[in-house]
Amino acid sequence: MTIKTYMQSLGTAAREASRDLARASSATKNKALIAIAKQLDSQRNVVLAANKLDMDNGRSNGLNDALLDRLELDDVRVDAMIEGLQQVAELPDPVGEMTDLGARPSGIKLAKMRVPLGVIGIIYESRPNVTIDAASLCLKSGNATILRGGSEAIESNQAIAQCIKLGLADAGLPENAVQVINTTDRAAVGELITMTDFVDVIIPRGGKGLIERISADARVPVIKHLDGNCHVYIDDAADLDKAVAIAVNAKTHRYGVCNAMESLLIAQSVAAKALPLIAEIYAEKSVEMRGCANSRQILPSILAASDSDWSEEYLAPIVAIKVVAGIDEAIEHINTHSSQHTESIITEDSANGQRFIAEVDSSSVMINASTRFADGFEYGLGAEIGISTDKIHARGPVGLEGLTSQKWVVFGDGQIRQ
Amino acid sequence: MTIKTYMQSLGTAAREASRDLARASSATKNKALIAIAKQLDSQRNVVLAANKLDMDNGRSNGLNDALLDRLELDDVRVDAMIEGLQQVAELPDPVGEMTDLGARPSGIKLAKMRVPLGVIGIIYESRPNVTIDAASLCLKSGNATILRGGSEAIESNQAIAQCIKLGLADAGLPENAVQVINTTDRAAVGELITMTDFVDVIIPRGGKGLIERISADARVPVIKHLDGNCHVYIDDAADLDKAVAIAVNAKTHRYGVCNAMESLLIAQSVAAKALPLIAEIYAEKSVEMRGCANSRQILPSILAASDSDWSEEYLAPIVAIKVVAGIDEAIEHINTHSSQHTESIITEDSANGQRFIAEVDSSSVMINASTRFADGFEYGLGAEIGISTDKIHARGPVGLEGLTSQKWVVFGDGQIRQ
Repeated sequence: MTIKTYMQSLGTAAREASRDLARASSATKNKALIAIAKQLDSQRNVVLAANKLDMDNGRSNGLNDALLDRLELDDVRVDAMIEGLQQVAELPDPVGEMTDLGARPSGIKLAKMRVPLGVIGIIYESRPNVTIDAASLCLKSGNATILRGGSEAIESNQAIAQCIKLGLADAGLPENAVQVINTTDRAAVGELITMTDFVDVIIPRGGKGLIERISADARVPVIKHLDGNCHVYIDDAADLDKAVAIAVNAKTHRYGVCNAMESLLIAQSVAAKALPLIAEIYAEKSVEMRGCANSRQILPSILAASDSDWSEEYLAPIVAIKVVAGIDEAIEHINTHSSQHTESIITEDSANGQRFIAEVDSSSVMINASTRFADGFEYGLGAEIGISTDKIHARGPVGLEGLTSQKWVVFGDGQIRQ
Repeated sequence: MTIKTYMQSLGTAAREASRDLARASSATKNKALIAIAKQLDSQRNVVLAANKLDMDNGRSNGLNDALLDRLELDDVRVDAMIEGLQQVAELPDPVGEMTDLGARPSGIKLAKMRVPLGVIGIIYESRPNVTIDAASLCLKSGNATILRGGSEAIESNQAIAQCIKLGLADAGLPENAVQVINTTDRAAVGELITMTDFVDVIIPRGGKGLIERISADARVPVIKHLDGNCHVYIDDAADLDKAVAIAVNAKTHRYGVCNAMESLLIAQSVAAKALPLIAEIYAEKSVEMRGCANSRQILPSILAASDSDWSEEYLAPIVAIKVVAGIDEAIEHINTHSSQHTESIITEDSANGQRFIAEVDSSSVMINASTRFADGFEYGLGAEIGISTDKIHARGPVGLEGLTSQKWVVFGDGQIRQ
């Protein structure tokens, strides 16, 4: 069987399964999630043995320690997957939700009904737990999925796939509601992202390189998350305690996450007072500072920022610092350099706060809060399949609702168009 | 200047203008719409003279009568454009609308704010009035636009573009908020649909061929409207009066529109009674009937349908007729053959009605109403830039709201992530 034929068989099966899933009750979907959790628990040794194979192969193939760490499963990580399934089972089901839009002059009654997207293709890198994570959110939102994990995790993913199939069968749902591609051939990805008849949306989860490659070649719409070059702007009217706390938290709470601040902007009028306070804490935490000429007059010992620093997503203990004339320059700088992920203004001036949220074109805009709050769990979505830096369909953290669409429903009593 | 350089200069200017537009007040945007209407009125002779040039060129180039009719402007059509601008000025502005999502346990307050998409590329065929129609809806929703009309309408479109520029300037908005591509070189379209840095979404308006070509090559997300192969299903429990009225209205109210019914499905148990009543009216109206074997036992004189008829969007006085066993076969047939535009069930059985709307995977699903109601105006959107057959972002009729996105807004008081 060629890769094309194989992928089309997965596509056909997914489309068929998506029809059953779309009409499955919340109770049935939850039953499947719990059944998958039970299978994972009872087949834990099979999964861990498969993972050991991947780890051995990874070591022979010279994977670095960071990749091996992402790839590795142990009891704690299996438990986390099981808990994740239980949590998704407890989330409210968005499917079927009706929004009544009232009667129209013609006499028809109009509503919108939330429905699954259909078939979702998910492409991800080494972590095998994404298989459960993605499958459970898609299943709960009534979508069939075709999953393509990293080639280094193929044995783990196939073992997890087997648990999913058994769990689906236990609940009376079609096994093909979740399919994990069983080949590491890259041509499979090429097919997946171009099968517009069978796949409704592609969600890539991984580094910027992966996402750019997929977006460039996809024919199926892609919900994508590129980089997170987030900014905090300390305004003239900032409360300095809040400013220091947020500038430190946004940069140093965690370094390798997309909602970490990468650039700190500070108004000229408060820079001389605030920057030394912040820099002292950054220095304690070994954060490398790269500043503009004006900030280096206040902090002479820090490195000079180059132009490329303003666009960089460091994902590391590095921060770019720029003194700006005020809110106009801050907004201009952000709209030029940010990746439209998350930006925060620190100000007690509500007019400046309002201008910032209205004019900064990012998926999350904040007043007096750390950028680290841009997260599906912090926003109360209960789950997060990713953070979209697109403007189309879903923007910012994507939870179950982002995996659905709405159709128009018309209730008539024989109405015809005049 | 190469086409690439030219298009990038349009893109840069559009992106810049989009920032001003995003913060323009409703009053300013409405002022611009009215000013454009006034310019169009006062420069009516210039526009009509430019259109005469297009018509003359079209005749020399052998355009057929249907195309020439679409291309032609006269006082009535200019008046309609002016009226359209005034109507859009009166619509509520979706931009800035806030949805309060309440406080989170962390203490942050969460909201969503409706914002423009940014820069919209619109590609359309011969009708010059689309220039005003598309520009006005994008302007009202705070988006900058780059418009590419049919090459046969280039003189008309440039004259209309001039009116738009003057109107924008009158209201103090940037002239580049609406730009009409001034070359007929096809390479310009290729650039427009791949300039992901400058264009946020592409909306093609035209035939299926145009839309398929654009979707295949685009890198920018496309809101697309492919075909409308709409169905009416007359259920066992149908009221025959409603069934006849709707089957006739959905097919014959207008033939060349995407929400016209193309296939009529009818339950076995009522076919013998209902089909002759409907067929009599179709025959009076010279609608060509193409039936399955079972329907031809009831209506022996009609043509035999071939397999391809079930997938056809005729846009003509032709209808495909199929007798089905009941609702299961109807839903199966629709989900296999329809273009997911609009389908209606005629039934007095509310359980069947509910099943139909839940299980039929189309952008509009109806009970006891004519498919002809699937329309932005009938749905109360006040305007319609198109009907999306996609599931991502906008589904079904797309009005002003479909040209916007929502960003997350966080109001804090110094909160940091623990």
